[in-house]
Parts: sequence; C-alpha cells; structure tokens
Amino acid sequence: MSKAERKDELGRKDYEDALDAMQGELTAMAGWASQCGARILVILEGRDTAGKTGAIHAISQKLNPRQVRTVALPAPTDREKTQWYFQRYVPHLPAAGEIVLFDRSWYNRAGVERVMGFATDEQVEAFLEAAPKFERMLVDDGLLLFKYWLTCDQEEQEERLAERHEDPSKQWKISPIDVAARGKYRDYTKAREAMLEATHTKHAPWTLVDFNDQRRGRLTLVRDLLDRLPVGPVEQKVPPLPPLDEP
Amino acid sequence: MSKAERKDELGRKDYEDALDAMQGELTAMAGWASQCGARILVILEGRDTAGKTGAIHAISQKLNPRQVRTVALPAPTDREKTQWYFQRYVPHLPAAGEIVLFDRSWYNRAGVERVMGFATDEQVEAFLEAAPKFERMLVDDGLLLFKYWLTCDQEEQEERLAERHEDPSKQWKISPIDVAARGKYRDYTKAREAMLEATHTKHAPWTLVDFNDQRRGRLTLVRDLLDRLPVGPVEQKVPPLPPLDEP
Amino acid sequence: MSKAERKDELGRKDYEDALDAMQGELTAMAGWASQCGARILVILEGRDTAGKTGAIHAISQKLNPRQVRTVALPAPTDREKTQWYFQRYVPHLPAAGEIVLFDRSWYNRAGVERVMGFATDEQVEAFLEAAPKFERMLVDDGLLLFKYWLTCDQEEQEERLAERHEDPSKQWKISPIDVAARGKYRDYTKAREAMLEATHTKHAPWTLVDFNDQRRGRLTLVRDLLDRLPVGPVEQKVPPLPPLDEP
Amino acid sequence: MSKAERKDELGRKDYEDALDAMQGELTAMAGWASQCGARILVILEGRDTAGKTGAIHAISQKLNPRQVRTVALPAPTDREKTQWYFQRYVPHLPAAGEIVLFDRSWYNRAGVERVMGFATDEQVEAFLEAAPKFERMLVDDGLLLFKYWLTCDQEEQEERLAERHEDPSKQWKISPIDVAARGKYRDYTKAREAMLEATHTKHAPWTLVDFNDQRRGRLTLVRDLLDRLPVGPVEQKVPPLPPLDEP
Ligand SMILES: Nc1ncnc2c1ncn2[C@@H]1O[C@H](COP(=O)(O)OP(=O)(O)O)[C@@H](O)[C@H]1O
Ligand SMILES: Nc1ncnc2c1ncn2[C@@H]1O[C@H](COP(=O)(O)OP(=O)(O)O)[C@@H](O)[C@H]1O
Ligand SMILES: Nc1ncnc2c1ncn2[C@@H]1O[C@H](COP(=O)(O)OP(=O)(O)O)[C@@H](O)[C@H]1O
Ligand SMILES: Nc1ncnc2c1ncn2[C@@H]1O[C@H](COP(=O)(O)O)[C@@H](O)[C@H]1O
Repeated sequence: MSKAERKDELGRKDYEDALDAMQGELTAMAGWASQCGARILVILEGRDTAGKTGAIHAISQKLNPRQVRTVALPAPTDREKTQWYFQRYVPHLPAAGEIVLFDRSWYNRAGVERVMGFATDEQVEAFLEAAPKFERMLVDDGLLLFKYWLTCDQEEQEERLAERHEDPSKQWKISPIDVAARGKYRDYTKAREAMLEATHTKHAPWTLVDFNDQRRGRLTLVRDLLDRLPVGPVEQKVPPLPPLDEP
Repeated sequence: MSKAERKDELGRKDYEDALDAMQGELTAMAGWASQCGARILVILEGRDTAGKTGAIHAISQKLNPRQVRTVALPAPTDREKTQWYFQRYVPHLPAAGEIVLFDRSWYNRAGVERVMGFATDEQVEAFLEAAPKFERMLVDDGLLLFKYWLTCDQEEQEERLAERHEDPSKQWKISPIDVAARGKYRDYTKAREAMLEATHTKHAPWTLVDFNDQRRGRLTLVRDLLDRLPVGPVEQKVPPLPPLDEP
Repeated sequence: MSKAERKDELGRKDYEDALDAMQGELTAMAGWASQCGARILVILEGRDTAGKTGAIHAISQKLNPRQVRTVALPAPTDREKTQWYFQRYVPHLPAAGEIVLFDRSWYNRAGVERVMGFATDEQVEAFLEAAPKFERMLVDDGLLLFKYWLTCDQEEQEERLAERHEDPSKQWKISPIDVAARGKYRDYTKAREAMLEATHTKHAPWTLVDFNDQRRGRLTLVRDLLDRLPVGPVEQKVPPLPPLDEP
Repeated sequence: MSKAERKDELGRKDYEDALDAMQGELTAMAGWASQCGARILVILEGRDTAGKTGAIHAISQKLNPRQVRTVALPAPTDREKTQWYFQRYVPHLPAAGEIVLFDRSWYNRAGVERVMGFATDEQVEAFLEAAPKFERMLVDDGLLLFKYWLTCDQEEQEERLAERHEDPSKQWKISPIDVAARGKYRDYTKAREAMLEATHTKHAPWTLVDFNDQRRGRLTLVRDLLDRLPVGPVEQKVPPLPPLDEP
C-alpha cells in the first residue's frame, strides 16, 4: 500500500485533471484582471514544509510571466533592518493587471522573526498593530488582497522533514532555521494564534487551508481564490487570424 | 487517435517520470550552487508560442523560490528607452548562489524590436556588436551564462495559435504583437539568423532546442543545462534531527 | 538702489555668516543622527519659484553626501500611475542615520496634480484622507518627519518668473506647467488651503515659511528644523591623529 | 595674515563672482542637455578631504534637482559584494537629459578597496582590465563621461584633517577609514598611479585637478567640464507670459 493510499491522499491523476480545469479558470481570470486593471496580491504563509512553493506553482504555471510574478525575499540586509518595516515589500506590490504571489511576506515578523528571536517583543507588538492599518491602506486603494495560511500537522511535518533528510539531493534544503523551528512547533503555533488574532480583519481576512494532503490543499486554495475574485466576463477583442500566404 | 499520438509526442507519464528524475538533479545542482556561490543565468528565447514559460516552470518547479527567480520584463518605459540598452536588465543579474531565468531578454532588440520596428537599424546593429562584449564582461566576472533558443515550425506554431484562438479562456493571451509576428514568420527567421551569426560566441554560445514537441523539448533543455553546469559534490553539513520531546 | 535694498532683503554677507554658523549646527546634528540612528525626512513644498531647491542646498551643502540625499522624482510613468499612490516614494525613505530631503513629494497630488487636472477629484479626496494615515505609520515607526511649505506672494513670483524669462540661459527652465500654474494662482491657493486643512496633523504638522526673501526664508527654515530635532550630544570617539613618519 | 592670504588662495568674493558666471553657463548647458537628450555622467574621485562634495555642490547648486542628481553609494552589502562589480552602479546611470554626479564611483575598487584590503589583488587586477571596457560600452552608447581626479598634497590634507579634528561639530566626520588612509598616503599614491595607467583611455580620459586651493580647484573643474561638453544653442520655445488678470 503506497503512502498516498495509506493516508487517503488525492491520487495524481485526479489531482491533475482537477488542476487542469482550474488553471483554465485562472487563465480566464488573468484575462479579466488584465482587461480591468485589477491588482491582485496573494500572500502565502505557513510552516516551512507546508507547501507554499508548490501552491504558487499551481497558480502561476499556465499564466503569462509578464503578468504574474512570485516574490520570495531573502533575509533583510542590515540597512533594511533599520528601515520602515514594510519598506522592502512595497516595491513589489502589483500595478494594474498584475498578479503578485508572496511566498512569505511581512508576516515573517510575527512568525519566524518572533520565534527565532530576530525581532524584539516591541517590534512584534508594533507590527501586529501596524499590519492591519497598512493593509487597510492598500485595500482602500483598491488592491485585491488575499492571505492564506497553509496548515500542516506536526506528524506530517516530521515526515516531510525526514524525507528531505534522507534524500541526499534535498538534504541541503534543510536550513538551520528549519531545524530550530522544528523544535519550536508549539512556539510557532502560539505565534500564529497571536497573529491571527491581531490581523484577521474584515478588510483583509485570513483563510486557513489544510495542507496535510498537498494536492487537496492546492485545489482548495485555488478554488477559494477563484471564488473570492470578482471575475467578470472578458470582452474579447480577438483579432482574427487570417490565412497566411507565406507557407 | 489523439494529437499526441498522431505526432508521436512523448506521453505524459513518460515525461513526468523523466522530469521527476531531472528535477532531483536540479535540486542537487541548486545545493551545489548555493554552497559554492555559483551565479547562474539562463536566457530563454524563441517565438511567442515556443514554450519558454513551460520550460522555465520545468526548471524552477522544485527549487527554492528564494534561490531561483524568473525575470520577464515588460516593455520598456519611455525613460528606459533612452538609457543604456542593458541597464534595465542589469539589476536582475544573479548574486552568489542565485539562479535567474530570463523569459526573453536583451535579445528582444534583435528579435521582436527589429521585426516590429521598435528599434532602428542602427540600434539593432549597435546591439549585435555590443551584446557579445557585454556578455564577455559577465562571463569574465565568473557568471555562468546559458542561452537557449527554442525552435518551433510554422505549422506547429499555427496549430498552437489556433488552439488559443478557439479557447475563450485563452483568447486574450494572443497579443497584437503575436498576430503581427505571425505574418512575419520569415522576417523572424531572418532576424534570428543575423542574431545567431553575431552573438553565437565561444564565451557565450547559443543552444538551439527543438520544441515542436514541448515535453521532449523541456527534457532536452534541462538535460543539456545539467550537463553544462560544472556541478560538484555538495558537502552536506546535514544537521541531525534529534527526537522531539514535545508531541 | 539695488533690488535687495529696495525690498529690505537680507544682505549677502549677513546671510552667509548666519548660514555658516547654522551649517556648523547641521553638521553636529548629522553626527548625532549618525550615532543614534535617527531617520530624518524633510519635505519641501511650495510654488515653483518659491525656493525649494535653494533651501535644500543650504541644508545639504556641508553634509556628507553618503548621509544626506535629495529626492526629486520625475512625473510618474504610466505603470506607476496605476500603483498604490505612495509606492514610488517609499523606496526613498531614510534608513538609520540618513537624512532625506524631498523636493516636492506625495503632496503633488493635492497641488499640481489637482490644479492641472492630472488627478481626478476622487483621487485627490482619497489622497487627503490617506496622507495623514500614511504619515502616521511612518511617525509611529520612529521616523522624524518635517513638512515645510514655502510661501511667496504673487507679486514676488511674477518678478522671479520675469527674471527667468529675460535671461536666455534660464528661459528653458520655465516649464509649460509653470506657465499654466501662473494663471492659476488662486486655484493653487485654494488647493493649498484644502491640503493644509486635511493634512496639518498633530503627528505631522506643516510649517509655513515666508520665502519672499529667499535668504531670510532659508535661515528661518534651517533654524526651525534644528530647533525641532531632538539633537543630543555626540559621544566623540575621536580617533587620535598620531604623528606621521612618512613625510 | 589669514590662512587664505598666506597660501595665496583665491578670495571668497572673486570666487563667488566667477562661480556665479559659470553657474549661468551650467544652466544654459543643462537646457541644451535637456533639449537634445544628452546623458552626462561626471565621476569625481580623490582623497577623502580633496573636496569632491564641494565641487559637486558648485556644479549642481543652480540646476533643477529633477535633472541633476548626486550619487554617493554606501559600502556594498554582503549580497552586492558577490554580484558583478559594476551592477550596483548601473541603475544610477543617466537617462536622456539627465546629469549624474558620482561622488566616488566604481574606482573605489582601485583606491580605497585596494589600499584598505577590501578587495583581493585579483579583484583589483580584474577591475583595472574591465573598467576601460565597461566605460567603452557606455561611451559607444553615446553617454558623455567625464572623470576627474582631485589632487591635494599631503601637507594640505594634514591641515584639513587637523581642522576637522579640532572642531567638535566635525570630529565625527573623520571615519576610521580616513584615519587608516592617512597613514597610507604613499600606498594611495601608488594605487592612483596604477589606476591612471590602466584606465586613462582615449575614450574615457582622466583629468587631474589641483584642489590644494579648493576654490580655484572648483572653478578649474567647472570650466573644464563646460569646455569639454559639446553644448550647442538651445532653441528657446519660450512661452510668452501674458499679463495676468487676477491681481
Ligand atoms: N513598444 C515596444 N518596444 C519594445 N519592446 C516591446 C514593445 N512592445 C512590446 N515589446 C516586447 O515584445 C515582447 C512580446 O510582447 P507580447 O507578445 O505583448 O508579450 P508576451 O510575449 O508576454 O505575450 C515582450 O518582451 C515585450 O516587452
Ligand atoms: N502628467 C503628470 N502627472 C503627474 N505629475 C506631473 C505630471 N507632469 C508633471 N508633473 C509633476 O509636476 C511637478 C512640476 O512639474 P515641472 O514644473 O515640469 O517640474 P519642475 O518643478 O521640476 O520644474 C513635478 O513634480 C512633476 O513631477
Ligand atoms: N568594507 C568595505 N568594502 C568596500 N568599500 C568600503 C568598505 N567600507 C567602506 N567602503 C567605502 O570606502 C569609501 C570611504 O569610506 P568612508 O571614509 O567611511 O566614507 P566617506 O568618504 O563618505 O566619509 C566609501 O565609498 C565606502 O563606500
Ligand atoms: N536574521 C534574520 N532576520 C529576519 N528574517 C530572517 C533572518 N534569517 C532568516 N530569515 C527569514 O526566515 C525565513 C526562513 O529562512 P530559511 O529557512 O533560512 O529560508 C526566510 O523568509 C528568511 O528571510
């Protein structure tokens, strides 16, 4: 019995068929965004192994890379650490017609930075107060903001880490921070609760998605995103493709 | 008989198995790049429907988005048009340990800009002379540069365009430039010849990959890239994962 | 009788002596900012001929250009116009120890953009509501923000424009916007009133400075800025300069 | 007898009159650059106390800050240190009609970085070879490049450092690097010789200016810059200033 069966995971074929259909909808959505100039920002947060990157690929795979882009910022430089906290994220916000996917985001401050001690308690407090106001500004300005938290049980996380640990080609992917984070599962849970409490607002709510089964998780997330977007019909000005004389 | 069979295209299952294996190699390669601080730049060029975006996804899918990034620049602004031609690409060049994938690149000047008349003949000439020198500077500096040209026959291109044209969710993807380009298949071919002639250098050669079958094309490209990279063994400093006391 | 005498303007010598002394204080202030990591943002607004640029030079002249910088953004590009309004200003905000001087600022929206019709009424309204909140975020984050409005009577403005108009080397400096603005003196006055009304807040108040006499205006502004900054003593760790053996 | 007299320095009044006239010429030059879309880059190098900042102020004081800007980059971040050496300078190159003044530049590698050991011998060698090629690309592209080296005798430098050292408001300006550099006067001289040898090219020559007398130095530099620029007449489309009805 394969691991997938044991766990009752969604099979690959079913997943791919369902995803194919949704990617068609995403393509149509992108056409709509392009035409009406919508600005879409999707934040993906969650523990290290939760599956943020895979979810992002599921969204972006069939879209035009000139319209959709992934932002996965490195740790802040010393100079950036002294700036307004949101400063280094702002240049990446979407312009008209653009779809931006944040793989981690300003919420680092309430998660990894808090748990690992990269930020002081005051900084975390200040962030939890500022984030809803900052997001309020963006939403008031018309930006379409979606925040997803990908959940994954400790047992599942252990399995995924062990898998990486055993595969020589993946071992290097386990960062010192991952190892440290592993021993702080409860601290992360507490940090997440505090974060949700402070930043789950009406104008910018969080959506939690169960990623214990990654395939189901991705489909759930994409479905939810599509349902929340006010996609309207696209007025096709489809240029005709006249017969070619050349060939 | 399905289209794939008719054309003797590589089946999905075979493709996915082969890709899985190569993505494992890519992961190992990324570990090596990370550890030795290699800077890798991969340029993908080719006609509109050639399959640049799909190839990029095949490469990046399993890699850490904090290490690999796709750059697909929009058309230049009026101010950018007056700057040094390479200026807007330079900020995206990789730092140590980074892998950057260019979906189109400075070669726009010798392709779409030339054929569509966005650049003057002098500008194109100047570019064809400057590009090898510019790339020489990067390569001399230790950057690992790979240039792929994805080829696709006119017949196949027609089929892909027709497919997009029939699918309402994809119609909007056909840009005015695509339509115009379609009628200029031969001009593009000529432009490409001139470009290869001028910029296929010893220090930065082009590799042409047949993308009439996209799956085969992707596998060929990834295989070639892996073979060209001087990947060495990664010294794993794998942190042990001690038993957890928490659960 | 010279123009300066006629108008009872401050003489050059008196001005230079006073400025010299204040520039010494500015240097000391910069040392303090450097040491305690203060982030200082000074916004200068006012009609075209008011003297913003001259005031900025008076402040920055003797400071280290690696610490102080002037930001005078060009008109927004089409892409920027669709972004969050404050987005293009944010990358220029000061990091620790930096002093940033804005020659015009986000207040363009409530001034030139309003009067010249570059922004819609709704955009102006939205800005007037957003600006205090945006500034609040910065000030709460510890940024030291100072907003100066340089005033100048219509008569004086006319004289300055006429002067530029007569001098061939300066004629080109009169932009079409300047000419248009000239005929809209009252509209600008009204726009300014609305702006002050909405954005003169406790956390980020405006200071109006009379620049009919530019020299007096500069001295007043610099004096005010120095008085508002909570400059403390700098702990000098002055490295000794040991005698040289070389010469 | 004042220091200036002792040294036969140019008097303040004479200096200001001469500068005033030249600043008029600079204004006319800026009009020309604006109209013909010239891109001007002026690099200022020299020992710490040489007077780079003062020279830059003399040039920019009367120009429109939306047209002229000073670039004084901080030390590179760790990430920047791994990039192509010229990468962090490129985004600051001038667009059409812009005048950019570099207070220090890529030549840091051949000066302070070499003498202070921030760069390896190989890096310095590689830079000395690359710089002429890099500048060649820019000049071939039509950029107007001017490189000034401000010279100052050791005796004069000692005097200036001593002056800063005695003035509490300026003491903090003496950086640890300045102190170290002071003891390495000869190393700097040698580094400069090697740099001139390698990078004084036909397409991008250096101009040495004696800044032992700062005022004379500034006038000499500005005069030289004006003489080298191919300034042509500006076609004034001076908009008439019709009488106002308002006042
Ligand atoms: N006016 C222009 N000047 C220069 N390049 C342009 C211009 N318009 C479009 N391009 C470039 O042509 C390429 C093809 O355009 P298009 O077909 O619209 O994009 P895509 O390939 O993303 O569908 C893009 O790289 C785009 O930046
Ligand atoms: N179309 C526009 N939309 C928004 N702002 C503009 C537009 N055109 C000019 N501006 C802004 O108006 C201000 C005044 O313009 P101008 O008089 O040309 O510049 P300056 O004050 O530098 O001489 C500048 O800040 C400029 O950025
Ligand atoms: N570690 C470093 N690596 C490279 N360049 C450096 C380093 N530290 C300082 N510099 C450069 O040395 C130059 C002189 O530094 P410093 O004397 O501190 O600055 P300033 O001339 O502005 O007073 C600056 O251009 C700075 O960027
Ligand atoms: N010193 C640090 N300060 C703030 N954030 C950090 C720091 N180090 C790592 N991070 C962030 O922590 C996250 C996980 O790090 P890693 O597992 O190393 O990729 C990333 O988003 C990093 O940017």
